[in-house]
Amino acid sequence: MNNENLFTSKQARRFPLYIRYLKALQNAGETRTTIENIAATFDLAQSDVNADFELIYSEEQATLLTIDISETIKRISNILNYDVKKNVILIGVGKMGQSLINYEPFKELGFNIVACFDSNKNVIGQTFNNLKVCAYDDLKTMFKDLDAEIAILTVPTIVGQKSADDLVSLGIRAIWNFVPIPLSVPRNVIVENVYLGSSLALLNHRLVLQKEKESKK
Amino acid sequence: MNNENLFTSKQARRFPLYIRYLKALQNAGETRTTIENIAATFDLAQSDVNADFELIYSEEQATLLTIDISETIKRISNILNYDVKKNVILIGVGKMGQSLINYEPFKELGFNIVACFDSNKNVIGQTFNNLKVCAYDDLKTMFKDLDAEIAILTVPTIVGQKSADDLVSLGIRAIWNFVPIPLSVPRNVIVENVYLGSSLALLNHRLVLQKEKESKK
Repeated sequence: MNNENLFTSKQARRFPLYIRYLKALQNAGETRTTIENIAATFDLAQSDVNADFELIYSEEQATLLTIDISETIKRISNILNYDVKKNVILIGVGKMGQSLINYEPFKELGFNIVACFDSNKNVIGQTFNNLKVCAYDDLKTMFKDLDAEIAILTVPTIVGQKSADDLVSLGIRAIWNFVPIPLSVPRNVIVENVYLGSSLALLNHRLVLQKEKESKK
Repeated sequence: MNNENLFTSKQARRFPLYIRYLKALQNAGETRTTIENIAATFDLAQSDVNADFELIYSEEQATLLTIDISETIKRISNILNYDVKKNVILIGVGKMGQSLINYEPFKELGFNIVACFDSNKNVIGQTFNNLKVCAYDDLKTMFKDLDAEIAILTVPTIVGQKSADDLVSLGIRAIWNFVPIPLSVPRNVIVENVYLGSSLALLNHRLVLQKEKESKK
């Protein structure tokens, strides 16, 4: 079943958060929670969360107040195909690359890093989370068998565009880009940029506003 | 000068991207670029970018088409206080913490990681990017002298809330949270969550939509 087209981008972003949180509750021994609690936890508008759960539970329940945690995890996973394994390759096994190889939450969304590549001889052959680093030069011959549509790009800025060009020429469909420059790729290749500077700048912006608010009291 | 309150959250997110890109152009020897090019590079609406540059250049130029790169960097940095050093501490020096200590772009936004802490004896005393890892137990006595309002939280999930509680009790003002669970903090403490799972899920969502679009052709 593939209903991803029913969801907005904002929902595609929110659902993984719900899963994360519900699994944490589950690990703490909880079996049920409320929509209100979820809205409060993520500081979301109640109306947004209501809309999300109307989708998740379709028309079964007109007004949903409390939800069963394990059932909700199952439904979100199913609707969003988290149960379908998606092969991912990782290019650039520096500190950021290594931390992503170890990032557990990816698995619960169905993402599976099947291979990682680096051109640094000191890194090639090392193992991270049971994954052996392959030589970047072998990417071309190995690519087809890896059956991966998504690449994580964690290379140094200076080789960012070159690596993207290589991936595109091999037929990659989507690039999750940690290189802090915009990449130039064909229109049909999806690029999602993770520029951490923006997030930190936003944090600081909110802090400045908060301090201003306090000083006016 | 502090004009941060004039900006929206979306602008606070976009400006660091502009700086990053303009510096890359500058390094490539460019001196001028166009508003149109910036909009196209980041796939932004021309009207949004126009609004951003009207703010950056105030009323000096009614219709701005090309901009001077170095002047624009100077203006954005000045308006957003990127020139003002902001001390930041980092809690949890695992792979993610190490990669953030090495993340160069933070410096151009004025963020300066002044100390990092871990409770793992094998990590304490190690040096990353000239920063020596301190014992987490020393955080309490060291905190005041570090003069940091922002903490980066990159600890394991299981100690996430406990670390946040410690930071709040010491008087931290803002937490940049990489722990993939929501933190419970007082209303006046700013938390900006970086949950990478959401970004990867969004990438996948866009890929699914793209493939559907292609299959309909």
